[in-house]
Amino acid sequence: MGLEYDGGDFLGWQRLGHGASVQASLEEALSSVAASPVQVQCAGRTDSGVHARCQVVHFDATVERSARSWVLGTNSRTPKAIAVHWAQPMPDRFHARYAARARRYVYRLLNRPIRPALNRQYLSWEPRPLNASAMHRAAQALLGEHDFSAFRAQACQATHARRNLHMIEVRREPDEVVAIDVQANAFLHHMIRNIVGSLILVGRGERPEDWIGGLLDGRRRELAGPTAPAAGLTFIGPMYPASWGLPAEATLPPAWETGE
Amino acid sequence: MGLEYDGGDFLGWQRLGHGASVQASLEEALSSVAASPVQVQCAGRTDSGVHARCQVVHFDATVERSARSWVLGTNSRTPKAIAVHWAQPMPDRFHARYAARARRYVYRLLNRPIRPALNRQYLSWEPRPLNASAMHRAAQALLGEHDFSAFRAQACQATHARRNLHMIEVRREPDEVVAIDVQANAFLHHMIRNIVGSLILVGRGERPEDWIGGLLDGRRRELAGPTAPAAGLTFIGPMYPASWGLPAEATLPPAWETGE
Repeated sequence: MGLEYDGGDFLGWQRLGHGASVQASLEEALSSVAASPVQVQCAGRTDSGVHARCQVVHFDATVERSARSWVLGTNSRTPKAIAVHWAQPMPDRFHARYAARARRYVYRLLNRPIRPALNRQYLSWEPRPLNASAMHRAAQALLGEHDFSAFRAQACQATHARRNLHMIEVRREPDEVVAIDVQANAFLHHMIRNIVGSLILVGRGERPEDWIGGLLDGRRRELAGPTAPAAGLTFIGPMYPASWGLPAEATLPPAWETGE
Repeated sequence: MGLEYDGGDFLGWQRLGHGASVQASLEEALSSVAASPVQVQCAGRTDSGVHARCQVVHFDATVERSARSWVLGTNSRTPKAIAVHWAQPMPDRFHARYAARARRYVYRLLNRPIRPALNRQYLSWEPRPLNASAMHRAAQALLGEHDFSAFRAQACQATHARRNLHMIEVRREPDEVVAIDVQANAFLHHMIRNIVGSLILVGRGERPEDWIGGLLDGRRRELAGPTAPAAGLTFIGPMYPASWGLPAEATLPPAWETGE
């Protein structure tokens, strides 16, 4: 199942026992459609305030429903901040998390002296002028497989810090927005927000462009920039090999098929 | 003063005595900066749920403040859904409403089977497939000066229904959005939402393209389409002759200077 959600309305993806989570809202709706308890596994857990354009989940159900019934039934039962895009039956060996070969995120910040009023749920804010070209050049040092300990949250529970960064692009968009578009096989906890927090220091001219590569090599979180706010971050979605037959928005482009 | 606001947080521009209005929130902040009561006049009143990217207001104040103090002081006192972009002193004869020569609005609707979760404050939703090219062609019949009674709300208080439509463009944007971009010297109450409601019927193929021109000529509101929802509408802003020396976002492009 592929779904979008507005993270501003939730305490994050994960069911935590207190406050609204995307997972709990979705499982409640699915359980009602299935008339029995349903638990989902997602491709990538998102923090409080982080949005998703196409999160992917899988679940086992003891009932048969058409794809259309799962989508319409779930959308009529979820809060407005969640919308299911599609659903399809999958072989037992499919796992939304382990089958994903890549994840893509976009971080957007408004770069102007005045704070945002419109779209403020989807933007962070940097009032000082940013040199987006310098940020882009600096970020290229992160490409490829590395130990990303320098950008890893203390609370991160991953067994190791090696990740393979496929792409990172910093670009200006209309309406004074700077976007950081990034894809990797997977990300550590807070990895993107920590990278963005460091790139902002380069963009302001407070650090040289080669500082980012140096941080990566040093593997010391305490030397990197602060964690950028959650509101600017959107999970574009996971990508799976074409052989799974998922919709285009969740399928690896042919160029990536040989990766990993 | 130029300002943006998120209309979803207000019952509309106008101070009504009940509920939050943009006008009341702004006047309260300005009065606090000025340490005396301030009343504002805006270029175009917006309905509940309608957003503004650059509304323009003027006001008289009994104190002197720098432009910077007006902007920063007001932004520190308004709700997060309002952000002042700029302020500048103007001659007494300037009036935000009467000096404006054009107003531009954009209406955005998500055209896909699934309702929006992300950006749902800024979109209306049309699940049936729309032919945006047919809508664009049909809309061109509205160009120029006409009596727009066919698209006028019953509650409209304007003294007459003649308006001069400078431009109307219907286009597809990324992420399954259809945008209706429209500019006129001024608009009647609900005029854009009524035009959009009628264009949607053309886009769905339920009315022929020449129906729009026929509606205009007939001047009968009851024959036109329904009023489209407010959430999709954003006031891009008013435009003034360059001689006023306002920022570019509020200044008429040279091509329009000879108009009216």
